[in-house]
Amino acid sequence: MAKVSRSYIMMCMLFSILLILGHSVEAGKVRHFKWDVEYIFWSPDCEENVVMGINGQFPGPTIRATAGDTVVIELTNKLHTEGVVIHWHGIRQLGTPWADGTASISQCAINPGETFYYRFKLDKAGTYFYHGHYGMQRSAGLYGSLIVDVAKGEKEPFHYDGELNLLLSDWWHESVHHQEVGLSSNPMRWIGEPQNHKLVVVEADGNYVQPFAVDDLDIYSGESYSVLITTNQDPSNNYWVSVGVRGREPKTPQGLTLLNYNTNSPSKLPTSPPPVTPIWNDYAHSKSFTTKILALMGSPQPPKTFHRRITLLNTQNKMNGGYTKWAINNVSLTLPPTPYLGSIKYGLKNAFSLVNPPENFPNEYNVMKPPVNPNTTAGNGVYTLAINSTVDVVLQNANALSENVSEIHPWHLHGHDFWVLGYGDGKFDPTRDERKFNLKNPPLRNTAVIFPYGWTALRFVADNPGVWAFHCHIEPHLHMGMGVVFAEGVRHVNNIPNQALACGLTGKMFTTRAANHTN
Amino acid sequence: MAKVSRSYIMMCMLFSILLILGHSVEAGKVRHFKWDVEYIFWSPDCEENVVMGINGQFPGPTIRATAGDTVVIELTNKLHTEGVVIHWHGIRQLGTPWADGTASISQCAINPGETFYYRFKLDKAGTYFYHGHYGMQRSAGLYGSLIVDVAKGEKEPFHYDGELNLLLSDWWHESVHHQEVGLSSNPMRWIGEPQNHKLVVVEADGNYVQPFAVDDLDIYSGESYSVLITTNQDPSNNYWVSVGVRGREPKTPQGLTLLNYNTNSPSKLPTSPPPVTPIWNDYAHSKSFTTKILALMGSPQPPKTFHRRITLLNTQNKMNGGYTKWAINNVSLTLPPTPYLGSIKYGLKNAFSLVNPPENFPNEYNVMKPPVNPNTTAGNGVYTLAINSTVDVVLQNANALSENVSEIHPWHLHGHDFWVLGYGDGKFDPTRDERKFNLKNPPLRNTAVIFPYGWTALRFVADNPGVWAFHCHIEPHLHMGMGVVFAEGVRHVNNIPNQALACGLTGKMFTTRAANHTN
Repeated sequence: MAKVSRSYIMMCMLFSILLILGHSVEAGKVRHFKWDVEYIFWSPDCEENVVMGINGQFPGPTIRATAGDTVVIELTNKLHTEGVVIHWHGIRQLGTPWADGTASISQCAINPGETFYYRFKLDKAGTYFYHGHYGMQRSAGLYGSLIVDVAKGEKEPFHYDGELNLLLSDWWHESVHHQEVGLSSNPMRWIGEPQNHKLVVVEADGNYVQPFAVDDLDIYSGESYSVLITTNQDPSNNYWVSVGVRGREPKTPQGLTLLNYNTNSPSKLPTSPPPVTPIWNDYAHSKSFTTKILALMGSPQPPKTFHRRITLLNTQNKMNGGYTKWAINNVSLTLPPTPYLGSIKYGLKNAFSLVNPPENFPNEYNVMKPPVNPNTTAGNGVYTLAINSTVDVVLQNANALSENVSEIHPWHLHGHDFWVLGYGDGKFDPTRDERKFNLKNPPLRNTAVIFPYGWTALRFVADNPGVWAFHCHIEPHLHMGMGVVFAEGVRHVNNIPNQALACGLTGKMFTTRAANHTN
Repeated sequence: MAKVSRSYIMMCMLFSILLILGHSVEAGKVRHFKWDVEYIFWSPDCEENVVMGINGQFPGPTIRATAGDTVVIELTNKLHTEGVVIHWHGIRQLGTPWADGTASISQCAINPGETFYYRFKLDKAGTYFYHGHYGMQRSAGLYGSLIVDVAKGEKEPFHYDGELNLLLSDWWHESVHHQEVGLSSNPMRWIGEPQNHKLVVVEADGNYVQPFAVDDLDIYSGESYSVLITTNQDPSNNYWVSVGVRGREPKTPQGLTLLNYNTNSPSKLPTSPPPVTPIWNDYAHSKSFTTKILALMGSPQPPKTFHRRITLLNTQNKMNGGYTKWAINNVSLTLPPTPYLGSIKYGLKNAFSLVNPPENFPNEYNVMKPPVNPNTTAGNGVYTLAINSTVDVVLQNANALSENVSEIHPWHLHGHDFWVLGYGDGKFDPTRDERKFNLKNPPLRNTAVIFPYGWTALRFVADNPGVWAFHCHIEPHLHMGMGVVFAEGVRHVNNIPNQALACGLTGKMFTTRAANHTN
């Protein structure tokens, strides 16, 4: 088991403190970044460790840009033996699926010593982040913030006087290799509680929501929020921000930081003790928060009907004589060495299983009990979606291997936002539950949780040609197989950089072709 | 600094205990091995750690074969983010330079999830080993023994009754990533001392030598020896084998194991305390051992003259504002992402520096003092050797960065054996020292040390088309730049597997060519 020394979750949170955004960049600018990824010594919690840094920094540099900008990241891999990719979490990569930064899916990993150019457009404002998407390199420290401001001349539907970005993440003392071998799962969640200060949630995953006030945030790995706070408290004091673990009984103390009023020294301690975060398994509290998130008026509306529904049962299983895995409809995802984008584009027959993965699970499966047959199998098949079709996904949670255990999983979709149509307890029943779907103002997100023993219904339009991961954002869970792969309209994808294809069977195809032409 | 918990050096040592080799395999057999490389938990010294294992074993499986056999290793990389290669240390790879297993030199690293086939002939008997040759994966645990028996019908020029193979290696508690970042050098050496028992050295690096008796072996990283011992001691006792560190003041106790007489329980402790190994800096002892190694009569003789002499000054330096490096003629080797074998074969212009690296060092350089100007630069140029020419290499040691410090370095040549023509103290002086070269019975080796402040003269024939590393075998020293690259007759190299070329600029060349043909 990995030892957790800090209970942060990877995500961004926006506080507003001072008036008016100070930047006045032009929309449509091309912004160049030159990054080197390498291991560096760092002591995030006073214990020196090796982390994966960018340009000598951990976390990596913050990208600040404006909606409509194109960013070009010239990424050089200065690791010695490891490949690397970076995923731009929340960016839909419209027209640039090869830049999604998912090893085995959108591109070949960048080899040590090599440079890859990520080039993509920031199509809308929001609080995003980026992170490694290969093995467990995110846990190794490869991440940073990506803040996209509204385009010049446009206005956000709320006002604030300044901002503060908070990027929080898990931190372990054991190396990710150690964690990978142990296959230990560490689902962490946090709640931030700026004391006394009310939080007004205005944005979730880069989409505006109907503002609502809360005392704390219930946030899961892969999510992001913007919240407004009003600095209406006694200005002679500073205030605690508490961060607690949720969903799993914490073995670590709360994380703490200070909300510093400008009038005070940043080191002045608050007069009262830090607020205690809600207990880790207060799911009613979590659900109450989650169901408050609704789209702001004027937001894109979901199609009223769907073309295809895929139900994905999340189970914890055993494989090959005892290894613990996670499986979806009893298939534990094992990514192939040849990225799907290339192997599908070029019609390769042996790059992955051409058998369609299951659309549902047996009706008699009891989600409230441990699996009767805990065994699962590895698979790497793809859900092929008709281009521009409307797809409903029902994520169904279940009991894990132990009795009376069902974990929370935050599912993240690449290449799209989805509407969250509803949450429910127990097994999803179409005739009963579909009627309760919110088709009026469901929030657009790229990440949504399933609560213990519950289901979550999502809808999206498969309108972005490419191959896209959809997976639990808890990195060890993905590592243990908790994900699926969607492909849509790959024949429409053009201009994949050769470098993104120069590995595995696509690489072999090219070298063989070239050799044949040479001979 | 890495903490050393065991003071073993990677090498093999053959004890003979029982009569007659029991194997009767046919010469010329093809031997298939199917190996998976992956991280495993292991506790080599009672502290659990993650090591790089093969088929779940650490060290990896022993390859046992016969001279004339062809081995085929189907190597699958089951690491999650790291490439991998395996070097077959001491095997000359005649006609198969692409199978030498050196990342950046002979092949593209095998990507995670992919399989590569090493196929090569074992051209002569000997005690060899194999190990990772990418980053510091050897230190991570990727190694094992490779024992090649004499061909059927042939006889070894000595007799023994049984055998025992000992593969010894350094062991660290910190991960290799930690070590890589720290660039901490850990040159370790060992001396084995079977108590009372005399050792008769009969083979070094796969070549027979004139038998000589010693009380202990003075062995360096990358070397191998076969020694005969006669079990002529009191059979009611067991005996200690002591292993001590040399060349650097040890921070660890001696390693110990037992020589067990069959008549006794393997757990019976010897009656006397373990022998104390010679102190770490007794260089006179080391030199006395080394100069006893002479070729057995009938061994291949060196050419009497040479075509080209390359003098390689070994210095410790600083680079880029303070990083400690090792440099050869003031060039610190930094391997390029595109392997040389492919980039030279296909005449690529931008894969590495086309400037020839220096053949010598300034005459005024004082090897007895720290460098006056400690700065060095990175380089990746190649020494291009005329095919079938005779090359002399003089390895010149020098004072390191600190006053009165000069370390021992064991230099290993790929693709060839070399004759060790002589050792000397101080700066090599051609007119004075060349006369003392041993051209009569110099030993053939693939690894030779330079002693502190000394020089070592080697001769080899560049008769093996390919690109070959020549480097200090202490892995962190190589990692810090202590090596050079030789290329010879690359135009004669054929049948490089496409997979060995499918990365970097050769990969790009192929994908571009194929794309042009497709369009």
